[in-house]
Amino acid sequence: MIIVMKPNAEESAVKKIITKIEEKGLHTHLSQGEEVLIIGVVGDKSKLDTNAICALPSVEKIVPITESYKLSNKKFHPEPMEFSVGSTKIGPNNITIMSGPCAVETEEQLLKIAHAVKKSGATILRGGAYKPRTSPYSFQGLEVEGLKYMQTAAKETGLATICEVTSAHAVESAEQYVSMLQVGARNMQNFELLKEVGRTGMPVLLKRGLSATIDEWLNAAEYIMAAGNSKVALCERGIRTFETATRNTLDLSAVCVLKEKTHLPVIVDPSHATGVRAYVEPLAKAAIACGADGLMIEVHNDPAHALSDGPQSLNFEQFDSVMNNIKPYIELSGRTL
Amino acid sequence: MIIVMKPNAEESAVKKIITKIEEKGLHTHLSQGEEVLIIGVVGDKSKLDTNAICALPSVEKIVPITESYKLSNKKFHPEPMEFSVGSTKIGPNNITIMSGPCAVETEEQLLKIAHAVKKSGATILRGGAYKPRTSPYSFQGLEVEGLKYMQTAAKETGLATICEVTSAHAVESAEQYVSMLQVGARNMQNFELLKEVGRTGMPVLLKRGLSATIDEWLNAAEYIMAAGNSKVALCERGIRTFETATRNTLDLSAVCVLKEKTHLPVIVDPSHATGVRAYVEPLAKAAIACGADGLMIEVHNDPAHALSDGPQSLNFEQFDSVMNNIKPYIELSGRTL
Amino acid sequence: MIIVMKPNAEESAVKKIITKIEEKGLHTHLSQGEEVLIIGVVGDKSKLDTNAICALPSVEKIVPITESYKLSNKKFHPEPMEFSVGSTKIGPNNITIMSGPCAVETEEQLLKIAHAVKKSGATILRGGAYKPRTSPYSFQGLEVEGLKYMQTAAKETGLATICEVTSAHAVESAEQYVSMLQVGARNMQNFELLKEVGRTGMPVLLKRGLSATIDEWLNAAEYIMAAGNSKVALCERGIRTFETATRNTLDLSAVCVLKEKTHLPVIVDPSHATGVRAYVEPLAKAAIACGADGLMIEVHNDPAHALSDGPQSLNFEQFDSVMNNIKPYIELSGRTL
Amino acid sequence: MIIVMKPNAEESAVKKIITKIEEKGLHTHLSQGEEVLIIGVVGDKSKLDTNAICALPSVEKIVPITESYKLSNKKFHPEPMEFSVGSTKIGPNNITIMSGPCAVETEEQLLKIAHAVKKSGATILRGGAYKPRTSPYSFQGLEVEGLKYMQTAAKETGLATICEVTSAHAVESAEQYVSMLQVGARNMQNFELLKEVGRTGMPVLLKRGLSATIDEWLNAAEYIMAAGNSKVALCERGIRTFETATRNTLDLSAVCVLKEKTHLPVIVDPSHATGVRAYVEPLAKAAIACGADGLMIEVHNDPAHALSDGPQSLNFEQFDSVMNNIKPYIELSGRTL
Repeated sequence: MIIVMKPNAEESAVKKIITKIEEKGLHTHLSQGEEVLIIGVVGDKSKLDTNAICALPSVEKIVPITESYKLSNKKFHPEPMEFSVGSTKIGPNNITIMSGPCAVETEEQLLKIAHAVKKSGATILRGGAYKPRTSPYSFQGLEVEGLKYMQTAAKETGLATICEVTSAHAVESAEQYVSMLQVGARNMQNFELLKEVGRTGMPVLLKRGLSATIDEWLNAAEYIMAAGNSKVALCERGIRTFETATRNTLDLSAVCVLKEKTHLPVIVDPSHATGVRAYVEPLAKAAIACGADGLMIEVHNDPAHALSDGPQSLNFEQFDSVMNNIKPYIELSGRTL
Repeated sequence: MIIVMKPNAEESAVKKIITKIEEKGLHTHLSQGEEVLIIGVVGDKSKLDTNAICALPSVEKIVPITESYKLSNKKFHPEPMEFSVGSTKIGPNNITIMSGPCAVETEEQLLKIAHAVKKSGATILRGGAYKPRTSPYSFQGLEVEGLKYMQTAAKETGLATICEVTSAHAVESAEQYVSMLQVGARNMQNFELLKEVGRTGMPVLLKRGLSATIDEWLNAAEYIMAAGNSKVALCERGIRTFETATRNTLDLSAVCVLKEKTHLPVIVDPSHATGVRAYVEPLAKAAIACGADGLMIEVHNDPAHALSDGPQSLNFEQFDSVMNNIKPYIELSGRTL
Repeated sequence: MIIVMKPNAEESAVKKIITKIEEKGLHTHLSQGEEVLIIGVVGDKSKLDTNAICALPSVEKIVPITESYKLSNKKFHPEPMEFSVGSTKIGPNNITIMSGPCAVETEEQLLKIAHAVKKSGATILRGGAYKPRTSPYSFQGLEVEGLKYMQTAAKETGLATICEVTSAHAVESAEQYVSMLQVGARNMQNFELLKEVGRTGMPVLLKRGLSATIDEWLNAAEYIMAAGNSKVALCERGIRTFETATRNTLDLSAVCVLKEKTHLPVIVDPSHATGVRAYVEPLAKAAIACGADGLMIEVHNDPAHALSDGPQSLNFEQFDSVMNNIKPYIELSGRTL
Repeated sequence: MIIVMKPNAEESAVKKIITKIEEKGLHTHLSQGEEVLIIGVVGDKSKLDTNAICALPSVEKIVPITESYKLSNKKFHPEPMEFSVGSTKIGPNNITIMSGPCAVETEEQLLKIAHAVKKSGATILRGGAYKPRTSPYSFQGLEVEGLKYMQTAAKETGLATICEVTSAHAVESAEQYVSMLQVGARNMQNFELLKEVGRTGMPVLLKRGLSATIDEWLNAAEYIMAAGNSKVALCERGIRTFETATRNTLDLSAVCVLKEKTHLPVIVDPSHATGVRAYVEPLAKAAIACGADGLMIEVHNDPAHALSDGPQSLNFEQFDSVMNNIKPYIELSGRTL
């Protein structure tokens, strides 16, 4: 941590800061520039109240040098993480495909989709039972009923299952029925929910917030891990920009950044990122090409009648075609399905 | 609602859509352009599955013409809303000042601050007992203990009180101790929490999400109101942009847009928006000048030792000076404190 | 300037960097943290090739501590700048009102508007003769013909005049006919144009680029000033964000930041920022309230038939009303029209 | 085009608009909704003054249905375009690799780089002779001297060459020495420059503006094409967002959108988009995987001593390795180098 003093900072103010820091057992290095004085701080910054220092009138700004997340930090965990989800794994050796409908609608629909995505090569069935929708008047999900259908589909097909949770209450239900919990973009900084999914010890997919920096995202993962749960995968699903041709802007460079900063697996969701069916295949290939560990792809038996997010859903034939067309890219990545 | 067909859409596809719409009791108007055909839809769109239509291969896009929020829509409630919070009011007749520390630290601290902000003219005491912090290792708030201090401060000073809630559990506690609940920016689309604060019937301050559009914000307010609670005020607190000189970009034009679209009161928080103490006064004046119904301003007895957000907090003297300096602007607005 | 080394940087790499820096006559301070080593650099950084250092494999990142702009930097010019434009002044003592049509259409139209805006209190007539339009098929301006009308209007009314320039060629023409040159948002980083307007020595209004940081904006001003022209005013006109309810997001906190970082005057353009006529008055008041030195407001004799930007233009009556309604705010700011 | 009237629009206002539209030879279709009336407009909208209509008090908004660009629009040019640049081609059959230093420094340096990038498979040598730099005190390029080195390098190696132009003056020089002109991000809406490069008839690479929408970008291409030059390729180089881990956010979904909207070739520049050397290879692969027609990659003989943009430059060995590693992706795309 670097403390930049204001040009006119008095010596007494500098001394006061140094004393304050050294009282906490940290060390300081002074560096007098031609215009400004800089105080370097060495040691465990968590003992220090940086806000208090930053609020001092003689302090210009504080520049952090090291990250605040530790458990999710590759520096301390250099090997890529791998963990099991039901009968499959997420990690550096395979490309995990999570597919299914945006929202679970009926048992029959879900079973039909589950069989179809399994046949094409998916290993995790996704399906929303709790839908966070912009308007209170939109369809909000089947809740426990939907979770039960997920369980049935898992039993019938052997697929692992993932379902978004939106409250502590939903977590309690979901942990009985599915193999993996998803925290959605709108809840990425719902810290109470993060602690709750941390408590379960179950595999968690943490989607990136609509305008979350990578740093905030890793800190959100840290909440889950600090609650004792290390099985966290991150899901890039597009960030909010001024561009309106796609629903969001898929940030594939985030995959590269994450691969440098964390050992946690990274999943890419081209369906939600773009909101356009035709862009799913090219961006799925791109995601694998730049190092993603898996894909989340929306599939629906009848996209034209889907209760949620129809325009981006693939039908069975389209999904099968995408799966065939991405296979050479999976091979190039040195992984298997 | 307008359905824009693809240039090559076949007549049979158009007929199918029209049938689908008319089956639901809505009406259609066709408009054949030189390149594309447009279907206008008239009637109650909530009966219609727009996603299903948008997913049809012959449909280019759907353009909504009217808003999805009703209870928070000025079109149906042309008069500005006013409601009581403890002994004060929020609405078109006064400028409500909510002040206090970012985080409640001790009873003594809170009482000191409460007396000071009251003396300078604030009518609502703010103070965080549940702090949503980016890192799990930052101070997370005193929780119920902090709420009790808020209650004590209210009794001692007669101020109304507001506290952020971050979970259903926190709502249950907070409704016993404070006069108004706050939903923070990170939870603006935590829909379960919105329903929960809606259930309480208490006044709610709904902060804008970091990258929320005004439309999404009003839909979030609609969640609270649809749960039976009409006492909602909106708080603009800065949006996320590429600019780094301020923590966020305070969007004062949003105040103007809101005044046109909704009858709900609008509060502006220049402290969190900028993160810089020196910008609070000029932007407080600007907020009043462009029509805001109130201000949220951070005040701390000792900003240099604040446990949270020190750099933007005013001390008592600074706050008193701001309150004096904004008075002529309040007068110009034709309101009272 | 701070150089942060990678955790595994070898001693020989560090030594090489230090030698390189000291060869240029600068000094270094080392600060060994628990995880990383930091090299502080003291002296005239312009002698140093920072990109070269940043490219070294052992370097993590470089953190600049002081700004690269000098002539536009308040640190070196603590007094607010004032300069003359025709018969009026821009600076700390008055609120300059620049008004007129987006595009000059006919001599008759321009004269009519010039008389009207003068009567209501404007001192500078704005009018576009070179229009940078998104589509090549939109009206592009009357060019020299329009400039001549501006000159006529100046002679008839005594108003100073301002016109946007879009090329070196346009600068050559405009400097013969108008009192002040404007560099538009799309050209903020058209550095050849900046040098060209710098060369003229005429007053320049430099609009902020659609996604320019304040730092880049001040560096753009530095281009004009480094070419020998110190008469630069900055114009905040909205930045590009995800919000679509307004054309851009007016960044009034930028006014506060600029007032801290530079001595150059700051003008606010609520017409272009929002694109909505009804928002001009409240945001004009807000701009004055937070410290702006002037306003640019679009006025048209017949907004419904304007060749450019009709929806945001005020007619004469509306402009007169805005001018009357902002007067108390001008008084409060301790300035005159 | 759709005109949405305000809820309270009077019949006389509607009639006036219809008359105005029909006078221009266009047709209207009325659609009376429960809340609002909509007027559909059919025919050649370029005859219509849409701003004037939008400015009418009874009009809520105008929704465009078709794009304003024609020459760059795939609807009218369904086949992907291909054009020659020196001895190579840009188009659907090959992956064009443009490589070289950010800035031309010396003849010796440029020749060394030219030989190296040719050996590894590049077909176009890039090199900046006019550098648009944020600060006026940064290195601004060798100008004509640099162009001459480019010509020498072309003669020695047979490579085609590309150089950024920043003014009409630079265009006049560059067209004598290089095979292709580049318009940089900061000049994407420097419309005078676009007309100028249009006039030359030479191949042009148009980089996307830092916050340009895809629609604005295609309209900028339209400026060049409307000036009589159809040889335009588009270059995605990252957009400005709130994320700070990469210099910009590479928008690969833009490649997919462009492939749907235009027949112009699309090049991706991972070097400038991220500013980080290590991200160039994974994003180069991703770009090819999602349909790009070529790559622009910065290469420098000695990145640690580059006069511009060192941190993102590859050295010869690194570039050769990237070229080898992307070959399987080029093969998968069904193209050749």
